[in-house]
Amino acid sequence: MKESQAPTVNVTFLPHGATIAVPAGTSVIEAALEAGVHINASCGGEGVCGKCRIRVESGGVRGGVSERLSPADVAGGYRLACRSILEGDVTVRIPVESTVDAGVLNRPASPRRAARVRRFNLSDLKQEGLFLPPVEKRYLELTPPAAGDNLPDVSRIIAHLQRHFDEHRLGVDLALIRKIPDVLRQQEFRVTATLVRPVRPDGRTRLINLQPGDTSGRSFAIAMDIGTTTIYGQVIDLVTGEVKAEHAEFNGQISYGEDVIARIVYAEKPGGLDRMQDVVVGTINRILGKIVRRSGVDPEDISAITLAGNTTMTQLLLRVDPRPIRRAPYVPAAALYPPMKARDLGMELGEHVTALVYPCVSSYVGGDIVAGVMGSGIYRAEELTLFMDVGTNAEIVIGNRDWLACAACSAGPAFEGGGLTFGMRAAEGAIEDFSLDPATLEPMIVTIGRVRPKGICGSGLINLAAVMFEMGIINNLGKFDPGLHTPRLREVEGGREFVLAWREETQIDRDITISEIDFENLIRAKGAIYSGCMTLLTEVGLTIRDVRRIVLAGGFGSFVDLEKAITIGLYRKSTPTG
Amino acid sequence: MKESQAPTVNVTFLPHGATIAVPAGTSVIEAALEAGVHINASCGGEGVCGKCRIRVESGGVRGGVSERLSPADVAGGYRLACRSILEGDVTVRIPVESTVDAGVLNRPASPRRAARVRRFNLSDLKQEGLFLPPVEKRYLELTPPAAGDNLPDVSRIIAHLQRHFDEHRLGVDLALIRKIPDVLRQQEFRVTATLVRPVRPDGRTRLINLQPGDTSGRSFAIAMDIGTTTIYGQVIDLVTGEVKAEHAEFNGQISYGEDVIARIVYAEKPGGLDRMQDVVVGTINRILGKIVRRSGVDPEDISAITLAGNTTMTQLLLRVDPRPIRRAPYVPAAALYPPMKARDLGMELGEHVTALVYPCVSSYVGGDIVAGVMGSGIYRAEELTLFMDVGTNAEIVIGNRDWLACAACSAGPAFEGGGLTFGMRAAEGAIEDFSLDPATLEPMIVTIGRVRPKGICGSGLINLAAVMFEMGIINNLGKFDPGLHTPRLREVEGGREFVLAWREETQIDRDITISEIDFENLIRAKGAIYSGCMTLLTEVGLTIRDVRRIVLAGGFGSFVDLEKAITIGLYRKSTPTG
Repeated sequence: MKESQAPTVNVTFLPHGATIAVPAGTSVIEAALEAGVHINASCGGEGVCGKCRIRVESGGVRGGVSERLSPADVAGGYRLACRSILEGDVTVRIPVESTVDAGVLNRPASPRRAARVRRFNLSDLKQEGLFLPPVEKRYLELTPPAAGDNLPDVSRIIAHLQRHFDEHRLGVDLALIRKIPDVLRQQEFRVTATLVRPVRPDGRTRLINLQPGDTSGRSFAIAMDIGTTTIYGQVIDLVTGEVKAEHAEFNGQISYGEDVIARIVYAEKPGGLDRMQDVVVGTINRILGKIVRRSGVDPEDISAITLAGNTTMTQLLLRVDPRPIRRAPYVPAAALYPPMKARDLGMELGEHVTALVYPCVSSYVGGDIVAGVMGSGIYRAEELTLFMDVGTNAEIVIGNRDWLACAACSAGPAFEGGGLTFGMRAAEGAIEDFSLDPATLEPMIVTIGRVRPKGICGSGLINLAAVMFEMGIINNLGKFDPGLHTPRLREVEGGREFVLAWREETQIDRDITISEIDFENLIRAKGAIYSGCMTLLTEVGLTIRDVRRIVLAGGFGSFVDLEKAITIGLYRKSTPTG
Repeated sequence: MKESQAPTVNVTFLPHGATIAVPAGTSVIEAALEAGVHINASCGGEGVCGKCRIRVESGGVRGGVSERLSPADVAGGYRLACRSILEGDVTVRIPVESTVDAGVLNRPASPRRAARVRRFNLSDLKQEGLFLPPVEKRYLELTPPAAGDNLPDVSRIIAHLQRHFDEHRLGVDLALIRKIPDVLRQQEFRVTATLVRPVRPDGRTRLINLQPGDTSGRSFAIAMDIGTTTIYGQVIDLVTGEVKAEHAEFNGQISYGEDVIARIVYAEKPGGLDRMQDVVVGTINRILGKIVRRSGVDPEDISAITLAGNTTMTQLLLRVDPRPIRRAPYVPAAALYPPMKARDLGMELGEHVTALVYPCVSSYVGGDIVAGVMGSGIYRAEELTLFMDVGTNAEIVIGNRDWLACAACSAGPAFEGGGLTFGMRAAEGAIEDFSLDPATLEPMIVTIGRVRPKGICGSGLINLAAVMFEMGIINNLGKFDPGLHTPRLREVEGGREFVLAWREETQIDRDITISEIDFENLIRAKGAIYSGCMTLLTEVGLTIRDVRRIVLAGGFGSFVDLEKAITIGLYRKSTPTG
């Protein structure tokens, strides 16, 4: 397993004198946030507020020129920090104004100070024997039939695979049998067989495709993460381990309800279940269309798609009535689903493509968690690990290679930007990073997509809370210090609120604020997750001190600033993290 | 295994004094044929020629009254032999005129003198451990889920089947998973599970259906014999072994060609393969509609359909390109086909119904032969058996429980009524039984369906040839005795012919005849089969004297008069038959 591999560059901020090493490609404003250096910035990184002026004093940056800067400014080395990309070592000076940057969903997560984002390298995993591709190809040079050797076509292939590749008990379905006579005769009985391995050791390997000639070097699969909010797909080269293309889109089901309960309620209406399936398959097909095209892969060489989602997402995708999931005793239809044809689910992939659905443990611990446990490798680690996937629901897994226990708790929507006055999903315009000038209380805000702010997403909320708590602007109950004097802090019904961006700096023609009520929601959500962890630990007779490692999964886990999460008590500093 | 079970009645023919025991329900004319007693008859059993008058002298018959008989005749005990059904012992006198009767396809085959027609009794077979139903039902009383026991629905069923019925490694498909949550909750988790057994010992049992409540006493399957000419289906009660309904129809593909080669040629045209499948599935669906309705069985209780056909019929049914079957080296696509959904083949049966296709050994030894070998039990017999399925092609199997070898040979269409001047399939109006008055050479003819004759079917041809050969009317080369004097014998181009029915006695407004050319075809077909048998025997190092038993399969096997077949040398008298 390797870290993200961009070369590192050093950036020094004057007058502070702080130097930080960041990956090349980072913007100056992102680097400033990591270095704890404040630069005023109101437009979220769109480059329109012009407040985040910096002056490059040695080295150089890419971009950062704007109409907000005069030709004389540009000539004098002035740039906008939010639009300046670091490509080598550089020293910049911060005037007495300035802001930050991002780009969610389809950008790689940037490494944070305390947490490491793991990107897997399949070829390393293969060498370690940890990556067992679900699909393998075998090139066969069959003896053509003759009067004295007129085995049926399928029997001929199976006999060859037995004799030369030690493959036994192969299953072949009718759709493939229909193709075989023609494919065999296209290149004189030289063919490539695609085999799908069984999930269970007592299962059968299935022959799912036959191609003329030798295509064994071209074997691809698709991984699809079906989130309640976001669906994310990758085309993976099973030979080299390379990700050939990736893309995410919002799950089209969002229009029918934000959370799984709302989706189940919709699915219970007449025609609702069919609609839910059509919509999610529609989103998947849009993603497939994009990633397959971008990857440049011949669709015939894609043999499998793995599908991981929570239990409700899984049942809606498979058109299995989710009604009992939201009714005591909360029973899902099935834990394991058999391999099926992607085409039978409506996916626009080759007829031969096998869909492998991650198993669901229970109604609220789904295939996404199983995939996370597998992907993170905690099931084969010796050390006791706490695995968390935080969203509207938080799923918590604890264990190691000998045992695993799991709990799910409802955290409320705070971590997904819901339930806040200006909450929003982690989409373009969401404030995700933040700092405050201790003297002036002027904010530096960075939005996803570097555009003017529209609202606050979950990880942005944690950053806000951590910064304000560390600066003493809010106390441990989320109440603002009554002694502060800034026009940004004002009384509203039910408490006070802080203006993060003035109306004219936003996309929504209103001031964007964070209120004491918002912090209360966060504290409750944090409490729910904490209780979930403690309950699970108690249940297995352990305490948090026994935990040697925490793994944060999912989009929230990739983008949350772990140091800030520890600051607000979402995680504990005393726990080693990795 | 039991013989046909109708009670036996004795009928004595005067003035001959011949007495014969026949099953009740036999017509007087059929009994006369078996007794070797001639009654003139020209209308095939329709009762319109009025020639087959008899007088009942003691006992009584059912029917036989006709407008061809005067009230005085009827009062005097006269009846038409072809319409008189034997229900008890009887003595009849034959005047100096008279004929016979039948009804093919959907009538049970009548027992013949030398061959026994085996009808299986499933409950006996079950007791002997020889009948392993492909489908079994299990009634389950599951513990409903609760907060402390919230296993997924499917896992709950599987765990119960493991614990209480020792069922392991069960497969469940998505279509069933979709039904399960609702079905479980209809009768408080009391359900009946339908299991399909694997064909191979290393296969998996599959759970294919779940019904609310206890339906374990109602388990049915359908057996379908897909002949090139005729398709025949039965609804079978898997609990009692009873045949609940049966029906046959001509394979709709006949319009596209009489034999398998013509069908393959059609399938090679654009759209031809799809058309061939649509047509055969159409015929199957018509048969299914009839037998399911007549059986009174709830379609939900039918769980499997077995399909046996020759290799071409099998591939056309499954829409697998049959092109290589008619090209050297004559390779079929597959020997084994996986279990599939009957619905996926277009069959109008429940969504859960599994279609089990009999394996094909080679291009010209198909699933019909495999089914015959299994049904006849020769694969588990100690004695060396010769199994023959005679049609346009004749397939011959020899072997016992230790080994089996097989040959197929093209016999030409003579045995299916083809290639004769007046040949026809074994359908209504076909002459199937025959005798001749030695003095007058007036014929007694019996047609299928007891109607006026339209032509001659395969088994009828054998009977004609045997009778004429025994009476010396033809010699061993099939040539007519030139010394005979009857207006029925006349010269035509290429030889001579014998008039079986005059124009006014037929349905076709022409004389129906049998010619020396027709006999030549029969001799060639017989020769082909004989050569096939001899080649196969030689190949395995045996002679005909080693064969202890001959089994004749198929419609021809059921209806052929074995004594007559031996007469013409199709089978050998020296071979024990059973």
